[in-house]
Amino acid sequence: MFVQPIPTLRRDGDALVVLDQTELPWRVVERRLTTLDEVAAAIAAMRVRGAPLLGCAAAFGVALALTSNAADDATLDHALATLRATRPTAVNLAWALERMAARLRPLPFAARAEAAWVEAEAIRIDDAQRCEAIGAHGLALLRALPPRAGRPLRAMTHCNAGWLATSGAGTALAPIYAAHTAGVDIEVVVSETRPRQQGLLTAWELAAAGVPHLLVADNAAGLLLARGEVDAVVVGADRIAANGDVANKVGTYLKALAARAAGVPFYVAAPVSTFDAATPDGAAIPIEERAADEVLAIAGLDGDGHPARLRLAPMTTRVANPAFDVTPAALVSAFITERGIVEPARVVEFLRSLAP
Amino acid sequence: MFVQPIPTLRRDGDALVVLDQTELPWRVVERRLTTLDEVAAAIAAMRVRGAPLLGCAAAFGVALALTSNAADDATLDHALATLRATRPTAVNLAWALERMAARLRPLPFAARAEAAWVEAEAIRIDDAQRCEAIGAHGLALLRALPPRAGRPLRAMTHCNAGWLATSGAGTALAPIYAAHTAGVDIEVVVSETRPRQQGLLTAWELAAAGVPHLLVADNAAGLLLARGEVDAVVVGADRIAANGDVANKVGTYLKALAARAAGVPFYVAAPVSTFDAATPDGAAIPIEERAADEVLAIAGLDGDGHPARLRLAPMTTRVANPAFDVTPAALVSAFITERGIVEPARVVEFLRSLAP
Repeated sequence: MFVQPIPTLRRDGDALVVLDQTELPWRVVERRLTTLDEVAAAIAAMRVRGAPLLGCAAAFGVALALTSNAADDATLDHALATLRATRPTAVNLAWALERMAARLRPLPFAARAEAAWVEAEAIRIDDAQRCEAIGAHGLALLRALPPRAGRPLRAMTHCNAGWLATSGAGTALAPIYAAHTAGVDIEVVVSETRPRQQGLLTAWELAAAGVPHLLVADNAAGLLLARGEVDAVVVGADRIAANGDVANKVGTYLKALAARAAGVPFYVAAPVSTFDAATPDGAAIPIEERAADEVLAIAGLDGDGHPARLRLAPMTTRVANPAFDVTPAALVSAFITERGIVEPARVVEFLRSLAP
Repeated sequence: MFVQPIPTLRRDGDALVVLDQTELPWRVVERRLTTLDEVAAAIAAMRVRGAPLLGCAAAFGVALALTSNAADDATLDHALATLRATRPTAVNLAWALERMAARLRPLPFAARAEAAWVEAEAIRIDDAQRCEAIGAHGLALLRALPPRAGRPLRAMTHCNAGWLATSGAGTALAPIYAAHTAGVDIEVVVSETRPRQQGLLTAWELAAAGVPHLLVADNAAGLLLARGEVDAVVVGADRIAANGDVANKVGTYLKALAARAAGVPFYVAAPVSTFDAATPDGAAIPIEERAADEVLAIAGLDGDGHPARLRLAPMTTRVANPAFDVTPAALVSAFITERGIVEPARVVEFLRSLAP
């Protein structure tokens, strides 16, 4: 069982303590959240991030709301709506909120707060167990890759879908941690993931876990794949539509195109809760547009080597900053879920097989 | 005729004055270079950059070497070798040095220094004229694009291949300046171009010329193309092989893949001097690997909004930093040269038609 070097989130009495991911990799800072609004703000500001972890954090947000207020339907509905509005693309967040609502709504008001804490903790533990299962299924895929001569197996990832993004070993990185633990000589190609640079989180968490890795600018992915220097691409997902189209961090689609052109498998690792049967295809997935400031606030290599925070606004530069893109199912080699490997063409069938 | 808002380089007596591009877009700083070594260092540090401008700068570097030393063969050979070693991928640099050598070698030593200045100035003026011709030929392609309803024509570019990269209007941006001057409603989608962020140079030079533009992270290119929000991609080139494969700033290949997937034309604008008949294909083009520091020296959005210069080295993070990638000829819709439009499959024929 993978043990997180630092818990990404944990209950502490009537508070939720989260590892502040906007401080990483510079500083390790924990934030103690005690109200619904603090949890919602932490999610919106990406202090807590990663699709599976968002679901866990939102569940604890409901518990906090019911603890510090009357646990009536108005409070519950307000908590669910507030948390659902924080990030529109990741479906795990909505999934966790639905699970909380289904558990809590039948209960008398007086029993809801305690039940909410119990259910949130169950969601957290379930998440960690799902990561383990994803790791085991994904490891089998990595072991089946053609042998390399004279170099480690090289898996490219994008953004951060490791232990920092979950309550356990991660999604995309779970198979990699499983391989590393199993003694496979493996190196992770980490793309920087502008504009938020979550690739630095990935480099930091791989370093913390002792896994070799190679950091590259997002732009370098095509060359490395074309040169045959990468054996597989493994990414997470924020939402998977019924037809197998995948919404994930912006830039994922470009890697999928380059992997296909190079004949390299492109795997999407995600828990079943990421599949959204209600979304027919990628075009129906809302794509979050984030603040221009994430692109504009660039501190670059100025002439004297000073960091310089740039504001281009006076230059009348418009900015677009979509946080996600859509990779068509046709570019996905397989989904790695806690329930096994799923072919993109069989998503609907797979979801039906899971229905109770 | 396009007039540069600030000359990218100019002779001033026995000195070469260059606009320091590592200071942009923060500060406008000119550097006065008086020796061969200063020119070579300015090229290596990318104070002077852009494939066509590198050729101009190198030519003036030869003139400086012959002015401050005996203009014998040893001095000439040393100057040529020193300048050729600065950047391995861009072929214009080698091309300009060969033109200088061919002009100077037959001359008596005493006549060489003055002839070098004259030839360098001729190379500079020729470059500006080639940019004009590229702009005119490219404008015809832009005018032939299908009409858009309710929005400007949108051309995406990568890195900086505008006036800053040349002695004139640029290569990739020359058709865009021509369109803007001709009254075409045009907007340029500018990708940031990590790790050196030359997209900021493009935003700055477009702002200086009053051309509307939209800055995006490199990762956003795929989504924008897939959504039908871009009508053409236009990039420059550092070297074009005999089979039409194109070496250009790393990340270009990813845009070419996404353009092809979206059915959007992908144009490469470059002077004839960028074509290298001696290089059979992309695999034979040397790809410059630059310092890891360009990727590692990241100042990001830390938790308090402070710029923070990051050194990941203690985390044992390896870095790969290839400066260019190779776009296969099959992904290029057309080359825009000063001698007209060239189909990728007809590069050899085109080069033969130009031979004296």
